[in-house]
Amino acid sequence: MTAALGDLRALLGDRLQTSASVRGLHGRDESAHPEAAPDAVAFPASTTDVAEIVKICARSGTPIIPFGAGTSLEGHVLATRGGISVDLSAMDGILAVSPSDLDARVQPGVHRVALNEHLGKHGLFFSVDPGADATIGGMAATGASGTTTVRYGSMRENVIALEVVLADGTVIRTGTRARKSVAGYDLTRLFVGSEGTLGIITEVTLRVFGIPERVAAAVCSFPSVRAAVDTAITIVQLGIPVARCELLDANGMRAANAFSGLSEPEHPTLFLEFHGTEASVAEDAQAAGEIATGNGGGDFRWSVSQEERSRLWSARHDLHYAARALRPGATSIVTDVAVPVSRLAACIDETLADIDALPFPAVVIGHVADGNFHTSLVLMGDDQAERAAAATFTERLTARAHALGGTCTGEHGIGIGKRRALVAELGDAVGAMRALKRALDPLNIMNPGKIFEE
Amino acid sequence: MTAALGDLRALLGDRLQTSASVRGLHGRDESAHPEAAPDAVAFPASTTDVAEIVKICARSGTPIIPFGAGTSLEGHVLATRGGISVDLSAMDGILAVSPSDLDARVQPGVHRVALNEHLGKHGLFFSVDPGADATIGGMAATGASGTTTVRYGSMRENVIALEVVLADGTVIRTGTRARKSVAGYDLTRLFVGSEGTLGIITEVTLRVFGIPERVAAAVCSFPSVRAAVDTAITIVQLGIPVARCELLDANGMRAANAFSGLSEPEHPTLFLEFHGTEASVAEDAQAAGEIATGNGGGDFRWSVSQEERSRLWSARHDLHYAARALRPGATSIVTDVAVPVSRLAACIDETLADIDALPFPAVVIGHVADGNFHTSLVLMGDDQAERAAAATFTERLTARAHALGGTCTGEHGIGIGKRRALVAELGDAVGAMRALKRALDPLNIMNPGKIFEE
Repeated sequence: MTAALGDLRALLGDRLQTSASVRGLHGRDESAHPEAAPDAVAFPASTTDVAEIVKICARSGTPIIPFGAGTSLEGHVLATRGGISVDLSAMDGILAVSPSDLDARVQPGVHRVALNEHLGKHGLFFSVDPGADATIGGMAATGASGTTTVRYGSMRENVIALEVVLADGTVIRTGTRARKSVAGYDLTRLFVGSEGTLGIITEVTLRVFGIPERVAAAVCSFPSVRAAVDTAITIVQLGIPVARCELLDANGMRAANAFSGLSEPEHPTLFLEFHGTEASVAEDAQAAGEIATGNGGGDFRWSVSQEERSRLWSARHDLHYAARALRPGATSIVTDVAVPVSRLAACIDETLADIDALPFPAVVIGHVADGNFHTSLVLMGDDQAERAAAATFTERLTARAHALGGTCTGEHGIGIGKRRALVAELGDAVGAMRALKRALDPLNIMNPGKIFEE
Repeated sequence: MTAALGDLRALLGDRLQTSASVRGLHGRDESAHPEAAPDAVAFPASTTDVAEIVKICARSGTPIIPFGAGTSLEGHVLATRGGISVDLSAMDGILAVSPSDLDARVQPGVHRVALNEHLGKHGLFFSVDPGADATIGGMAATGASGTTTVRYGSMRENVIALEVVLADGTVIRTGTRARKSVAGYDLTRLFVGSEGTLGIITEVTLRVFGIPERVAAAVCSFPSVRAAVDTAITIVQLGIPVARCELLDANGMRAANAFSGLSEPEHPTLFLEFHGTEASVAEDAQAAGEIATGNGGGDFRWSVSQEERSRLWSARHDLHYAARALRPGATSIVTDVAVPVSRLAACIDETLADIDALPFPAVVIGHVADGNFHTSLVLMGDDQAERAAAATFTERLTARAHALGGTCTGEHGIGIGKRRALVAELGDAVGAMRALKRALDPLNIMNPGKIFEE
């Protein structure tokens, strides 16, 4: 390790940082997992830098933890075994944008919001929206998705190709700029969601979309979670191309009203968005409204005004903070199961019953058309009884999702928090994953201890 | 091998076949690659059978070649090193269909057309349409796509999870029924397109769609390939949700008129399809028509009649045979490059110039909105000069696609025909693929010699 630090210092100069404050900032994310600082933080400026850093670390078996914006919710960036955090924030170039091809080539450190500001000048947008202003590299490594996935897909569908530095310092490209290819194994999809355990992503070719001519937002409250979920299922089943379809439970609406100044009924509520032409969004919103009414929905209000849309979606995106604000001084643990949509209402109903028995508040937020929902558990981080209650709640929720044919993680990943849940979910398939990990990272230096328990 | 045959005979009885005719049928596909028959053909009836077959073959290092419908175009099913062809046609069950979840669970031997007949009773359809009536297992293993990929995606986007028998006989499930998951590495996408080289797919969970309320087909001829391609690019760029968008060049239209009884102008032509409501397909068709007219397109005719649609799409799907019929006694070699759409017109123009210099006819057919096009080279299979001309043409085409940022294969795969092109395309990334192959199949018994040259 000492040798590695010396070599890194020679390579990077003051782009290697070892101060307690910088190490501390790189040893935590937005989860409630305890901080675990790296021994040093490297700030590469190029793919060549990254490759050299990896080669130096490989010589001494030093762990390497890629770092984007630190917005992970599962402890992905925590240096639980020490080592070097590789902060890619200086590699934030937007290298190419092609409006004809609807693609863009970017460095991993560019942030989602900055990318969209740039793309907007070309009449384009990048669709994946996890809420947080994450980096594109982090989103690719985590396999991020979010509110628009029902229409535009997750990172899995929106990454065309990657440049990756492997565990021995080799630089590979996983694909070409062709939109479609079956040239060998799908390395792109293997690295998307690999959480930094197979290599470091140093460039991302993304699919982008033209900004729709017209966008309409809608909001509607329901007498029950089931009525809201049934509405979402029917909308998707009928092929209405809804662009966002988010459920907030009564607690979530209470939090949003208080934190974001909404004045919506505090009942289960769907937030929806439609993208298209003036005629098509009107047709889609009207059709969705009829389905909502048929399921007992209240006043179905839709609007194309930018102001109304911003009001709704800011409130939705701020819910992570709105939930915490229900209880001053609290932290939050966010769960992430996904189930087949036909089982979603049952899964949420049973989860709401568990929430009623918790000694702290919790809200439910769902990417409901994907069958994916979060509970935000608003607990005091240093209260062991509350932590224990949260752990039991989460274990029951994961078991429930598995029993209903679902997954322990729809979009947040395994990190360090769901390693046992992964084995419960996929059994022997995890053995195949371990074999792939050993094949590409025989020294186990790439973000060790993430995804797999040892 | 003798021991393996004895053990397989004991396991399968007369579900192990060694007659020359059965072996011959399993030693060829729809490509022009020379027949290579397996030593025997096994007909498993269950996943357990498949696992036992694999265990028996593993003991003696006997090659295993999974076989679906034999409609591959790259020699995937050829037993170039002998061994056991595992014909999955008896495993053709449709195990579950969920209209609420828009998914279906099927065995690998079910054919695409049969699946769609079954799904139709539920108001559903499976979208991936490569033309041939392939099996779902074969389509998953090849990473198939086709005419509807621009709207609904390829197998990559439409396989939710797989059951796979690994090279040591272990049976794994790569995912749950959740529509969205980031639980560990994306094994589903690793096996999709792996061409039988990593394991045998024994069950597939598929995404399906509701049959659209209204379908409209359109046809329009253009003064040049470039005008047709520009039309397609603009349609996609403006977000018009076109469901199919196929280019036929002048030779292709000549073949289709002759073989399928069309009477369309023999100019570059787009076949399009729109899915939606009565209002939306009218809006989409009208918008597409205006774009076509702006690019010099002729009469843009669209129709919602089933008869007109069948006429057009049957002609499109029969083009593989229509091309061969241009020259009695001929066979065909089909190329498969894909490039960024902005480079597509240039790529096709240069390719048409090469076609003009060929000593045999050739047609161009393109999934143009995906940047993917085929040339069908209509040659005499036993004419070495024609074979050599075809090889030179294909090498030039692949190099052209690579120079334009594209891939040697958009949807047909590597098989035995594009192994060197894969290395030219992805370089060191192929080393990573080989490492994955060794990790999951250390004995190299799963379809050896495909994807990788040795």
